Amino acid sequence: MNPLTTGHARLDQQLRFLVEIDRLKLVLRRTTTIDGTRHENSAEHSWHLTLMALMLAEHAARSVALDRVIAMLMIHDLVEIDAGDTFAYDVAGLATKHEREQRAAERIFGMLPADQAGALHALWREFETAESADAQFANALDRLGGFLPNIHGAGGSWRDHGVSSAAVLRRMDPLRHSMPRLWPTIERLVAAGRDLGWFTDAAPEPR
Amino acid sequence: MNPLTTGHARLDQQLRFLVEIDRLKLVLRRTTTIDGTRHENSAEHSWHLTLMALMLAEHAARSVALDRVIAMLMIHDLVEIDAGDTFAYDVAGLATKHEREQRAAERIFGMLPADQAGALHALWREFETAESADAQFANALDRLGGFLPNIHGAGGSWRDHGVSSAAVLRRMDPLRHSMPRLWPTIERLVAAGRDLGWFTDAAPEPR
Repeated sequence: MNPLTTGHARLDQQLRFLVEIDRLKLVLRRTTTIDGTRHENSAEHSWHLTLMALMLAEHAARSVALDRVIAMLMIHDLVEIDAGDTFAYDVAGLATKHEREQRAAERIFGMLPADQAGALHALWREFETAESADAQFANALDRLGGFLPNIHGAGGSWRDHGVSSAAVLRRMDPLRHSMPRLWPTIERLVAAGRDLGWFTDAAPEPR
Repeated sequence: MNPLTTGHARLDQQLRFLVEIDRLKLVLRRTTTIDGTRHENSAEHSWHLTLMALMLAEHAARSVALDRVIAMLMIHDLVEIDAGDTFAYDVAGLATKHEREQRAAERIFGMLPADQAGALHALWREFETAESADAQFANALDRLGGFLPNIHGAGGSWRDHGVSSAAVLRRMDPLRHSMPRLWPTIERLVAAGRDLGWFTDAAPEPR
């Protein structure tokens, strides 16, 4: 099936994995590119997050190992090749997300030689559990990545899918702790979006 | 213009840069995704290359600093936001590529605080001159990234644009030196493509 056979078992496994993960380019997210012309996919989103890490690491509240944060962001969405992108505000989808993604991680990382499979699986679990400083910063950047197109796109996926401002602030909470310098701006922009009617919040009492 | 103002000058510059580089998602390459359904863009391509680096570093002929290789691959195509993607076999385009990309590098990296601008500009130049072991390995992966979809897609951009097998082998030459373990497979697959009529080579003499 795969024409890229070299006769070197490890290299052949790695090449098969690299061909397989090309499919992340085909997984569409709810968010758009910042110019709003189309939905973005999880591969280009992952690339964007790695550059956010490189540029913003100096603002992390706790010191982070940048190479680990970047590797985490490179691989954090690979499970979506099988499990699809679960919208951050989709309560029903979130209920089954963990199990679907766990199976996906086993299959996809399992294509690699055991040492690499184990390392990537552990890195992905670390991102998901979000307990280490590195994983918390990576998660904060993932939230910022979803925030930018919605701010530039008049509410974007928040408006398309009927999300409340309180839900957005809860979703952004990792930024409050991991990049406190950015937090007042997040709050100010969500408040502005509320004034512009982007959210499903009850109408404010007339004054 | 940019709603993401925090009052912290460095952070504001970094955020403007991160919004600007989102446009790399809109730069289309001549190559397709491996499934052949659409052209790939330079952002998702860059992501794919970083994972190639992470998985294949053990096959590099000279030892490499993986974090530097990955950072190089993350940023190597940013100049295309202004300069566009120049097809690797486009002789006329290649003549003006250097100057166009040099101007782009100055504008795009120049959006960052001076220390980060200087570091990214130097990293990009290192990739372009391809003299260090890190840059040679990064360039070899860039070639492999263009090779995969064409091999899976019955000649792909080689066939679409009338390229000879000799030109492809010349283009792949960094792989011969930086990942010698893969080279016999590259030669074998190009020869198979020649037999399948993917290239503009003169017809072989009848035997």
